[in-house]
Amino acid sequence: MYELGVVYRNIERTPGHLADALAKFGSATVHEAMGRVGLMHSGIRPIHAGAQVSGTAVTVLLHPGDNWMMHVVAEQIRPGDIVVAAITAPCTDGYFGDLLATSFQARGARALVIDAGVRDVKTLGEMGFPVWSKAISAKGTIKATLGSVNIPVVCADALVHPGDVIVADDDGVVCVPRKLAAATLEAATKREANEGEKRAKLASGVLGLDMYKMREPLAAAGLRYVD
Amino acid sequence: MYELGVVYRNIERTPGHLADALAKFGSATVHEAMGRVGLMHSGIRPIHAGAQVSGTAVTVLLHPGDNWMMHVVAEQIRPGDIVVAAITAPCTDGYFGDLLATSFQARGARALVIDAGVRDVKTLGEMGFPVWSKAISAKGTIKATLGSVNIPVVCADALVHPGDVIVADDDGVVCVPRKLAAATLEAATKREANEGEKRAKLASGVLGLDMYKMREPLAAAGLRYVD
Amino acid sequence: MYELGVVYRNIERTPGHLADALAKFGSATVHEAMGRVGLMHSGIRPIHAGAQVSGTAVTVLLHPGDNWMMHVVAEQIRPGDIVVAAITAPCTDGYFGDLLATSFQARGARALVIDAGVRDVKTLGEMGFPVWSKAISAKGTIKATLGSVNIPVVCADALVHPGDVIVADDDGVVCVPRKLAAATLEAATKREANEGEKRAKLASGVLGLDMYKMREPLAAAGLRYVD
Amino acid sequence: MYELGVVYRNIERTPGHLADALAKFGSATVHEAMGRVGLMHSGIRPIHAGAQVSGTAVTVLLHPGDNWMMHVVAEQIRPGDIVVAAITAPCTDGYFGDLLATSFQARGARALVIDAGVRDVKTLGEMGFPVWSKAISAKGTIKATLGSVNIPVVCADALVHPGDVIVADDDGVVCVPRKLAAATLEAATKREANEGEKRAKLASGVLGLDMYKMREPLAAAGLRYVD
Amino acid sequence: MYELGVVYRNIERTPGHLADALAKFGSATVHEAMGRVGLMHSGIRPIHAGAQVSGTAVTVLLHPGDNWMMHVVAEQIRPGDIVVAAITAPCTDGYFGDLLATSFQARGARALVIDAGVRDVKTLGEMGFPVWSKAISAKGTIKATLGSVNIPVVCADALVHPGDVIVADDDGVVCVPRKLAAATLEAATKREANEGEKRAKLASGVLGLDMYKMREPLAAAGLRYVD
Amino acid sequence: MYELGVVYRNIERTPGHLADALAKFGSATVHEAMGRVGLMHSGIRPIHAGAQVSGTAVTVLLHPGDNWMMHVVAEQIRPGDIVVAAITAPCTDGYFGDLLATSFQARGARALVIDAGVRDVKTLGEMGFPVWSKAISAKGTIKATLGSVNIPVVCADALVHPGDVIVADDDGVVCVPRKLAAATLEAATKREANEGEKRAKLASGVLGLDMYKMREPLAAAGLRYVD
Repeated sequence: MYELGVVYRNIERTPGHLADALAKFGSATVHEAMGRVGLMHSGIRPIHAGAQVSGTAVTVLLHPGDNWMMHVVAEQIRPGDIVVAAITAPCTDGYFGDLLATSFQARGARALVIDAGVRDVKTLGEMGFPVWSKAISAKGTIKATLGSVNIPVVCADALVHPGDVIVADDDGVVCVPRKLAAATLEAATKREANEGEKRAKLASGVLGLDMYKMREPLAAAGLRYVD
Repeated sequence: MYELGVVYRNIERTPGHLADALAKFGSATVHEAMGRVGLMHSGIRPIHAGAQVSGTAVTVLLHPGDNWMMHVVAEQIRPGDIVVAAITAPCTDGYFGDLLATSFQARGARALVIDAGVRDVKTLGEMGFPVWSKAISAKGTIKATLGSVNIPVVCADALVHPGDVIVADDDGVVCVPRKLAAATLEAATKREANEGEKRAKLASGVLGLDMYKMREPLAAAGLRYVD
Repeated sequence: MYELGVVYRNIERTPGHLADALAKFGSATVHEAMGRVGLMHSGIRPIHAGAQVSGTAVTVLLHPGDNWMMHVVAEQIRPGDIVVAAITAPCTDGYFGDLLATSFQARGARALVIDAGVRDVKTLGEMGFPVWSKAISAKGTIKATLGSVNIPVVCADALVHPGDVIVADDDGVVCVPRKLAAATLEAATKREANEGEKRAKLASGVLGLDMYKMREPLAAAGLRYVD
Repeated sequence: MYELGVVYRNIERTPGHLADALAKFGSATVHEAMGRVGLMHSGIRPIHAGAQVSGTAVTVLLHPGDNWMMHVVAEQIRPGDIVVAAITAPCTDGYFGDLLATSFQARGARALVIDAGVRDVKTLGEMGFPVWSKAISAKGTIKATLGSVNIPVVCADALVHPGDVIVADDDGVVCVPRKLAAATLEAATKREANEGEKRAKLASGVLGLDMYKMREPLAAAGLRYVD
Repeated sequence: MYELGVVYRNIERTPGHLADALAKFGSATVHEAMGRVGLMHSGIRPIHAGAQVSGTAVTVLLHPGDNWMMHVVAEQIRPGDIVVAAITAPCTDGYFGDLLATSFQARGARALVIDAGVRDVKTLGEMGFPVWSKAISAKGTIKATLGSVNIPVVCADALVHPGDVIVADDDGVVCVPRKLAAATLEAATKREANEGEKRAKLASGVLGLDMYKMREPLAAAGLRYVD
Repeated sequence: MYELGVVYRNIERTPGHLADALAKFGSATVHEAMGRVGLMHSGIRPIHAGAQVSGTAVTVLLHPGDNWMMHVVAEQIRPGDIVVAAITAPCTDGYFGDLLATSFQARGARALVIDAGVRDVKTLGEMGFPVWSKAISAKGTIKATLGSVNIPVVCADALVHPGDVIVADDDGVVCVPRKLAAATLEAATKREANEGEKRAKLASGVLGLDMYKMREPLAAAGLRYVD
C-alpha cells in the first residue's frame, strides 16, 4: 500500500485560514460536521490534558522500532504544520523525545500525532509541545530502515493525506481532508451557532426530550412509561 | 435479560442520609465493608482526578452507538442521583458531552458512570460535573433504538438496581444495594474508626507484622528467613 | 522458577551514591546507556505525574489477590530502597493503599513499583509517596498464601534482582543490575554531556539531518526526494 | 452486591422442555428473539469448536485465584444443568480441569461457562465436556475463601439467575431469564420458520435489497448511486 | 475522511489473472514482495483455519452496530470479488451470518474481510465461505444509518481501494494496490523461485548463517562467541 | 538487564532423561509440582492444538522487528532443545516461518516458544513443528541489530535460563529450572499417582466435597446452606 523511500517536498496544504479556524471547534464538533467520520480511534490520547490545536498535516511513515524518518520529516515542516506519524506494524516504542521536539518546534510544528509511543513527556510538557500518542515509553529506537514522508498514511484508523487539516484536543484527533475543509468549517460554525442558546435552555431545566421534540418519535418507537 | 423500551418512573431510592453519608469513605472502604464485592472493574476511570461522590442510582440501558435514551433518563433524575449507563454490547463512542451534562446538572445529578465513552471532557471539567467512563472519544452517536430506564443493569461487571447507592472516587466505583446501605454504612464507619490510630503506629515505625500479629501465622504457613 | 516462602534478609545493595545518582538521568537515558534493555513494559505507569526517583530494589513476590507478603517486605526496607512487587499471575487488584504506604515511608522506602493495582491513590498523592502500577483498583486482597521477599523477580517484563537500581519517572521504569550500575552511570553521564549543546543547535533551526550527518547514509539507503 | 458464603439448594429451574428446546436455535437467534440482549461479551469463547448446548443455570461466585466453591457447586448440579461461574475480580487462572469435569459430568452437567481460565483442555475435548471461557491457563488455584452458589451473578456482562436458560455455541453464550423462556422459544421458532425459504431465495440470486424491500428506505435516507 | 451515502457502481478491478495468481503465494510472501507493507494488523484472523484466497476488493463502510450497507454491497459483488468491510468506530458486533453469506456466495464473492464481528460461524464453515474478522459475536445489528460502497476504506490499519487485490490466508490479510499487482506478482514469483532450493539446503543441515553469508556482518556488528 | 551481542556456546543442559520425562505430565501438573510458579502468561498459545512436548531451553533475545539472531541461535540447537525467544519490547511481527522451521527441525529442535508473532502457520502445521506464540502475523522482519543467544531471558513473564526444561501443551508453557528438574519430576509423578483413582471415584458420583474432606473446613469458614 505504501510507497517506501520517498520524500514528497511539495504538498498542497489546506489554506492556513481554514486550517487555523477549525481548532476552536474541537474534534467532536468537527467530526460531527463531516458526518461522524475522520476520527482516529480512542486509543490515541494527549500526553498532557488541555491542548487544543489544528494545523496542516505533514505525514511520515516509520517502521517498528525505527525513528530514522523523524529526522527526515523535520526538514519538511513549515510553520502551522502538525506531524502525523504512522508505523507499518503495531509498536509502542518511544519514537520522539525532547530533542526532536526542540527541532520540530524550531521548524514551526504545532503538534505531533503518532500511532506509537513517545518519551521525555515531562520535558515535552514544560516545552508546551503537544503530543497525541497511543503510548508513553522510554524505549529507544534505531535508525536503520527507510520509510517515507508526505505520502498518504493510515494513522490510528484514520486516512491522512499530506496537507489535510488535523484537529486535536482532549477528546481525540480528527482529520479533515483538504477539499472538505471549507465545507467542514461552515458546517461546524452552524453547529456551534445555537449551542449557547441550547445550553441556556437546558441549564434552565428544559429537557432535551422537549427541546429536540423527541417525545413523539419515542412513543412511536414503542417507549412506555410505568409508574 | 433486559426489558427493553420501558421507563420506570417510581423507583425506591435509598434514603438520602444513607446515600450521602457513604461518599466520605470512598470506594475501597465501602467495598471492603460489603465483603469485597460490588465493584465495577478497574477499566472504569474518572475523566478528571479528585472527585469523590455518592448518590442514588438511576439507570439507563443504551445500544452501541446510540444515545437516545440519555435524553429519556434525564427526565427521571432527581437531586442527589447518579446516572449509571450500561450498553448492550462493548462500545467506546462518546455518548455524553457538555449539553447533556448541563441538563443532568440542572436536574440535580451528581455524576455519570458509563461503561462507554464520553466527550467534551475539558468542558465537563470546567463545569465540575464528574464522570467515570471506560473511554474518552469524540465519536458521536445516533438516536434510533429504544433501551430502557430504571431497570437493573450490568455496568462494568457490577449489577446496579435503580435506587442503589453509587460511591465513586479516584480508586473506582462501587454499588451498594439499597437494602445493604445501612449495614454498609455501619461497617464502613467501624473500619475507619481505628484507621487514624493504625496510621500513627505505622508512621512511628511499628510494623504491620507486629500490629496485625502476623508473625505467628506466617511462621505456621512455613515462612523462613535466610540471613 | 520462583523459590516460595523465603525471605532473604541480607542482600547486596548497589552502593547508595550510584543508586542515587541515576535518578536525574531518567528512565529513557538510563536504558539507552545500557543498550536499550532493562525496561518494564509501558503498561506500568505512575499513578501521579511528575515523580522521578531512583533507589535500590527490595523485591516481593505475591499471589493473585493476596497481599500478605507486603507486610513481610516492609520489614526488609532500608532508607533509599524501592519496593518492586511481582505477582505470580496477572491480577489488577489493589494490593497497596495509604496504610501500607505510611509503613513503607516510615521505613525509608522511596517508591513502589508493582505489576498489579493499588488504591487510595488520592491519599498517596497527598502523602507524596510515588507509585508505578499497571492498574488502579479499589479491590481489596486477602492474606492467605506465602510468596517470597528478596528473590529475583520478573516485574512487567523486567528481571529484577534484590539490590539492583530502579529508575522511574513519567516515561516508565528501568532496572539497572547492580554490577552494571557504575558503568551505566558513566555512560548516562556521557550521553547527557552534550545534550544541551545539541538542544541549542536544534532550537536554532539546525536539522538533525545535518547535525547527525544523516544525509549520506539516507541517500545510500535509497531515499529519494520528489518535488 | 453479592451475598457471600451461602449455598441456595432449592432453585426454580426453567422447565426442562423449554431449556432443552432452545439449544437448536443457537445464541444468535435466541438473543435476537429476546430483543438483542442477554449476551455475554465476545471474549467468552468455546475451548473447542462445534458444541451447541442449552440447559438450566446453576451459578457459582468465586474469588480470584480460588476455586474452592467449584467443589461446592458440584453437589448442586442436576442433570441438564450448565454451571455458570463468575469471579469477583478479573482473573485468568485455570479454575477447572479434567477432575472437576469428571465430577460435573457425573452429576449430569452439560457444560461450564466461566469468566476466567480453564486447563486440561485437551482432555476436556476428549471427554466431550464443552466449556466456554475467557482464557486457557495452566495456572492452578487455591482453596481459601468462600464465595456463593446459586445467587444471581454477573458473568461476562450478563446477569444470570439460577434456573435461567443458558444457550451456548460457536457464536457465544446467551442467558434467557426463566420467565422469558417460553416467549423466547416461541419467538425464536418464528424467526427460524422462514429462514429456509429466505436462504433458498438468496441462494438463487435474489438480493436482500429486494427480498427485504430495502430500496425505498435506502433512497429515502439519501443513498445515491454513482456510475 | 469518508464520503457517506454513496455507492460507486463502476470500479476498476485489477485484472482477474493477476488477482487470481496472487493467492498461491500467501500473505507473507506478497507483503514482502511489496516491501513489507499493506498488511492488516494481526487482530484480523480467519474464523476457520486453512483457507487461502485472493480476489478483487469491493469495499463497504458501516457504522457501529449497523449492517444495513451489507445488503447494499451484495448487489455490487461480481464473481471473484472479496468484500472488505470497515467500521467508522471500533465494534465487535456480529454484522454477518449465514443468510448474508448465502447471498454473497450466490453473487460470486470469494470471502469477507471485516474489522468487526461475525456470527453463524459453524454454518459459515459448513458452507465453505471463508471469513477474516476481529471478533466472533452473536450480537445482532440494526439497519438505520447509511454508509458507503466502493469508496477507499481503512480496514484494520490497511488502506483498501475498490478493485485492489486482497490476499488472505492463515497468516493474515494483505492488500495489493491495483497498480502494483503486476509488479508484486513478479516480485513474489521471484521470491518463491529458489525457496525450494533453500528449504532443501536447510533441511540437510546447512545453516542460514552460511547460506545467507551472515557470519561476516554479524562479526562486524560486534557479535562475540563465548565458550 | 540483558547482555547484548554475545552467544554462549557451552550451556549446562538439564540431563535428557529428566527433560524428556516431564512432557507427559503437561504444563498444569508440572507448574503445580513446582508450587504454582514458572508459567508463561496465558497470552502465549499453541498455533495448532494437540502438541505436548518438553525439552531443554536454548534462548535468544531479539529486538522488535528484527529476527537476525534467529539464524544465530539455529547453530546452537542440539537435538532435544526447545528454542525460547524473547523480545526487548512488545512486538507482534512474524519472526519465524517455514524456512527457519526447516532449519530448526534439521538441527533437532522440538519446538519454538516466542513472545511475538510467527507466520507460515499452515506449513508449520504440515511440518509437525510445534510453536507457542502470542500472535500470528505475516509481517516480516529485518536483520540489523544484535541480540544475544543463551543468556537468561524473560519470556512472557517467565524467567528462562539456558538449559532449563520447557514443558508446553494446550494449556500453556512452563519453565522448570535445571536444578529443580529432578525434584519437579518426582513431585509431578506423585501428583499423578492417584489421579486415576480420584477420577474413577468422581466419575462414580463421589463428590470432591467428600473425597477431599472439605465439608468441615467449609463449615468452619462459615458456609451455610439455605433450602
